[in-house]
Amino acid sequence: MLIVMKPSATAREVDAVVNVIQAVGFRAHPMPGATRTAIGITGNEGPVDGRRFEDLPGVAEVIRVTKPYKLITLDLRPEKTIVKIGDATIGGSELAIIAGPCAIENRDQAFAVAEAVHKSGARFFRGGVWKPRTSPYTFQGLGDKGWEIMAEIRDTFGLKIVTEALDKSSVDLVEHYGDVIQIGARNMQNFSLLRRAGRSKLPVLLKRGMAATLEEWLLAAEYIMAEGNYNVILCERGVRTFAQHTRNTLDLAAVPAIRRISHLPVIIDPSHGTGNAYMVTPLARAGVAVGADGLMVEVHNHPDLALSDGAQALTPAQYAQLIDQVSAIREISVANW
Amino acid sequence: MLIVMKPSATAREVDAVVNVIQAVGFRAHPMPGATRTAIGITGNEGPVDGRRFEDLPGVAEVIRVTKPYKLITLDLRPEKTIVKIGDATIGGSELAIIAGPCAIENRDQAFAVAEAVHKSGARFFRGGVWKPRTSPYTFQGLGDKGWEIMAEIRDTFGLKIVTEALDKSSVDLVEHYGDVIQIGARNMQNFSLLRRAGRSKLPVLLKRGMAATLEEWLLAAEYIMAEGNYNVILCERGVRTFAQHTRNTLDLAAVPAIRRISHLPVIIDPSHGTGNAYMVTPLARAGVAVGADGLMVEVHNHPDLALSDGAQALTPAQYAQLIDQVSAIREISVANW
Amino acid sequence: MLIVMKPSATAREVDAVVNVIQAVGFRAHPMPGATRTAIGITGNEGPVDGRRFEDLPGVAEVIRVTKPYKLITLDLRPEKTIVKIGDATIGGSELAIIAGPCAIENRDQAFAVAEAVHKSGARFFRGGVWKPRTSPYTFQGLGDKGWEIMAEIRDTFGLKIVTEALDKSSVDLVEHYGDVIQIGARNMQNFSLLRRAGRSKLPVLLKRGMAATLEEWLLAAEYIMAEGNYNVILCERGVRTFAQHTRNTLDLAAVPAIRRISHLPVIIDPSHGTGNAYMVTPLARAGVAVGADGLMVEVHNHPDLALSDGAQALTPAQYAQLIDQVSAIREISVANW
Amino acid sequence: MLIVMKPSATAREVDAVVNVIQAVGFRAHPMPGATRTAIGITGNEGPVDGRRFEDLPGVAEVIRVTKPYKLITLDLRPEKTIVKIGDATIGGSELAIIAGPCAIENRDQAFAVAEAVHKSGARFFRGGVWKPRTSPYTFQGLGDKGWEIMAEIRDTFGLKIVTEALDKSSVDLVEHYGDVIQIGARNMQNFSLLRRAGRSKLPVLLKRGMAATLEEWLLAAEYIMAEGNYNVILCERGVRTFAQHTRNTLDLAAVPAIRRISHLPVIIDPSHGTGNAYMVTPLARAGVAVGADGLMVEVHNHPDLALSDGAQALTPAQYAQLIDQVSAIREISVANW
Repeated sequence: MLIVMKPSATAREVDAVVNVIQAVGFRAHPMPGATRTAIGITGNEGPVDGRRFEDLPGVAEVIRVTKPYKLITLDLRPEKTIVKIGDATIGGSELAIIAGPCAIENRDQAFAVAEAVHKSGARFFRGGVWKPRTSPYTFQGLGDKGWEIMAEIRDTFGLKIVTEALDKSSVDLVEHYGDVIQIGARNMQNFSLLRRAGRSKLPVLLKRGMAATLEEWLLAAEYIMAEGNYNVILCERGVRTFAQHTRNTLDLAAVPAIRRISHLPVIIDPSHGTGNAYMVTPLARAGVAVGADGLMVEVHNHPDLALSDGAQALTPAQYAQLIDQVSAIREISVANW
Repeated sequence: MLIVMKPSATAREVDAVVNVIQAVGFRAHPMPGATRTAIGITGNEGPVDGRRFEDLPGVAEVIRVTKPYKLITLDLRPEKTIVKIGDATIGGSELAIIAGPCAIENRDQAFAVAEAVHKSGARFFRGGVWKPRTSPYTFQGLGDKGWEIMAEIRDTFGLKIVTEALDKSSVDLVEHYGDVIQIGARNMQNFSLLRRAGRSKLPVLLKRGMAATLEEWLLAAEYIMAEGNYNVILCERGVRTFAQHTRNTLDLAAVPAIRRISHLPVIIDPSHGTGNAYMVTPLARAGVAVGADGLMVEVHNHPDLALSDGAQALTPAQYAQLIDQVSAIREISVANW
Repeated sequence: MLIVMKPSATAREVDAVVNVIQAVGFRAHPMPGATRTAIGITGNEGPVDGRRFEDLPGVAEVIRVTKPYKLITLDLRPEKTIVKIGDATIGGSELAIIAGPCAIENRDQAFAVAEAVHKSGARFFRGGVWKPRTSPYTFQGLGDKGWEIMAEIRDTFGLKIVTEALDKSSVDLVEHYGDVIQIGARNMQNFSLLRRAGRSKLPVLLKRGMAATLEEWLLAAEYIMAEGNYNVILCERGVRTFAQHTRNTLDLAAVPAIRRISHLPVIIDPSHGTGNAYMVTPLARAGVAVGADGLMVEVHNHPDLALSDGAQALTPAQYAQLIDQVSAIREISVANW
Repeated sequence: MLIVMKPSATAREVDAVVNVIQAVGFRAHPMPGATRTAIGITGNEGPVDGRRFEDLPGVAEVIRVTKPYKLITLDLRPEKTIVKIGDATIGGSELAIIAGPCAIENRDQAFAVAEAVHKSGARFFRGGVWKPRTSPYTFQGLGDKGWEIMAEIRDTFGLKIVTEALDKSSVDLVEHYGDVIQIGARNMQNFSLLRRAGRSKLPVLLKRGMAATLEEWLLAAEYIMAEGNYNVILCERGVRTFAQHTRNTLDLAAVPAIRRISHLPVIIDPSHGTGNAYMVTPLARAGVAVGADGLMVEVHNHPDLALSDGAQALTPAQYAQLIDQVSAIREISVANW
């Protein structure tokens, strides 16, 4: 159920509708837009009788939702969501660049990379503190020592910190030290984790699962939003196919497909999406050309020595080149598309 | 590193080697076998110097492990692991049948199905108490009420309870009320959950992820075993492909492939593996013929009314027919293969 | 359009209906069944007005076909098609075994394998005369010399010859020297070849394409049948997925899926379906258990020396064991399923 | 075997080496480059003794080829191949645009589209004369009538004609009426057809098969080149995956991957690569941004009425917009990458 308010509806009228929704035991999700507010309803088992809302003051229309989505849709919010993280944004006119090493390995490495990231004009620093690794016997991240380094980078460079949370308790730590909670591909359907992130005040960057359909991915976003956190950023990072020349097959058509359905911003990860450093810049260009709101890129000061994912990390010099090229494309794209 | 003891080694000699391993700060995983004990070593960062173990009394051989696996391998344990759950087994001569509804919906449903399962001679009852659902707006399981019903079924029929744990705290509940911890396909790489299950005394049934390679799946088992829980049962439940006539493509070649590498038992889930009730019995026959150690089958007293996965559930009558057919194949298979 | 004749309809009445269909410019496909004959109509562009057929003598019913299939369906022929090749059959009570080397390499090799195949009781000998190879620089088959060897094997052992045709002109040669035209996975949508095979008097064994949906595969069969050749045998040989422990993923659920839709027999190729000799026998057992009408198996007297696909070929001794095991399963299956 | 000539080698010296290669029974493939000529050798069974060539006048180096490729490689020809079709090129500085309807339906449709294509500055007109359709019962192309229309379009607009050949005899017709032989995804491993195209004087546009690895695709090109036709253009048109929001998943990483290995030009087909008109322009932009040498785009004057693939065809107005956008990206790309 979706309640669309009149353009002329007052804040008080919106509140009154929210109160009625809560009074009958449901959850209300008001989404203010450029021209009107819409209110999504969740928490109902089975269909809701919409007639009780139709005559409330300020209500323009009551829409029964037949699609599997309620909150991610353009029906609820026709304009794109712009996620604000301090003075930076994702989903607006700015191209969001999230760059950094796969894992924080030590202070020197992290600072060398952070300096390059900061110098490029990027606003976000990524870096794994714990790394979800396929094998229990490979480097699993610095853990607590990593947090100290991250905190120092935030202070020194003013970069916003994006890092992965693996379970409920690690969300607590990201909330304490970071700016954006990343949920990785392997956890895209870890519903306990999605719900916990949905109760956070921090934005959530939700990576697409390795074999997730668009619907499954958007419903994972819906899990987060249903808990009240509407600042979700989707990240396409490639899907698993038979192809062997890349680690994953980057599915850029996901960007226009999501635009048709959802107001959520979408970014591209060409590093995991290809697994090969020499492909990252061309695919980053393609990601910006297709219309993505940002990029997530792995950078390492010594890719050859990286403790994880070195094969796909750019050097600071390669990264600077990438930024130049995507900026040129973004410039013509924002003007015309 | 893998230490193979002489066939003549005494328990005291094995203990002595374990003590040395622990004294140098590693973890020892002794695996007694029919003819000899082998001891796996984990917890090392980088290679271990094996010479210190070579001359200990009772040691036959020290093997450097170059494969990504340490504990799941036939090198460590040449005979198949037989998981014992009370008086039932998985991995031995008995064909293990785990049957029950997708989700516990109410007492009548659960008892009707449990009676059919018990009557068929099966030893295990499956049933979701919480259901990890793709959408936040569909039936999510009975929760606590489900546990009471499960406990009653265990008492009444003597069936062992197999149910899914979604996060660390739900492992606690399975430990309290159930007999086998199931880890679902969506959580196969939820490493926090794998580690928690690895510290449990209950056996763990580990479903293959939707797009997991064999190596990723076996390394997920390795995560559990590295924590000290060696009772892991692998469950093939189909992988995601382009095919549209089934919900998933059941990869039966996984059974001989795992047999070549690992001592862990493998069972087949033809219900999720096909998604269509009319295919479940033929694929169950195929699963037993290929050499699986057991089957996991969804049964519902009224599939048409099921709150989840009704399309793939068998009626009690269809299920009885399945058991007849697979038993006949198992009989000739145990004799000859 | 599908015209179902009354059980009492005479051959003359069937002929009369066929004549009317042809007179209005369409093609008639009469399919005699156990209890009644049905006549498929192809060659129409757009819908046919069925009223003109409804009142013809002997007509029971005129059915408008809305599915993409016309001739492969159980609507047209409710009983399974039994393809007869001399005194052998595929699709009847007999389990059809087609065995032989990937490619005919020389007389000694071919005769050694043929003897083992014959001794096992199999009725069909497979062997590539031309080999469609991924690289232009690898062994492409013996060509004409291969035909002489094949002809001699047919004479000596009474085995029916199954061999692949790559284009229209090679169909001519199979018609001259062989018994069954095989169309390979790479040519499943080579429509020129399908049409040519459809005009042959020999049965056609149609392998599933590497990434073909069930619908595409059945429509490829439809291409053959639309030309008048109703003796089509479908062969599942695995599909391409992300999995790396096998060459292809054998999709055994295709067997019950086809049974629901089509009267055509289906066989399984566990050799290409796995690519590993040690998996062939377990998957052959699974194929028979799932209900396939036959098996296609690669056998080589010296797999190590094979010029193509040696890794998946069984030795004569392994092959004999396979036959023993599948025969035991077939015996219980024919009785009960 | 690959013979690299000295930069100073004369045409006569190259000829002399070619003669020796032919005299010993092999085939010579001389590839003149910007700084030196290299000569590939095919037709050998097993390794060639290179010593006989080492001392011939003008020879710089004899390289044993251990990769599966001989002729498509940068080893043989370090500069990109520029295919010339009359006064147009593919692979050079010009962005090649091949546009037109899926199938030629009638004169009015073909001319309306051709006019738009010509007006946009594109040099190539695509259009199916025969259409390889999944079902035998759907529109199969105009056949001979289509050729007359194509011929007229070539005369009227000066556009080069690109059309698909389905078998050997249809190559004859393309040679008579067209400018570029297209080999479709379904025929990528139709080796008879590849060989026939390899003996043509026309360039060949080789689409990637639906589930072809890069290696299989490049070896299909190798089949064509081994017959002496070096004007091969590769076309990425999407691969089959589990994804359901597109008809195929466009694998743009194939472009940098091929660049690393091969001198052949690569173009992108965003129409088949997505299957949805609204995605074609964004993915065309991405294709140019990733560095493709051209685009193949479906345009129809009335997509709603198209007899095939209407859902993915652009209107002339949408197509004009696409050209504007990709031209802007191409301009910055040629300058900088």
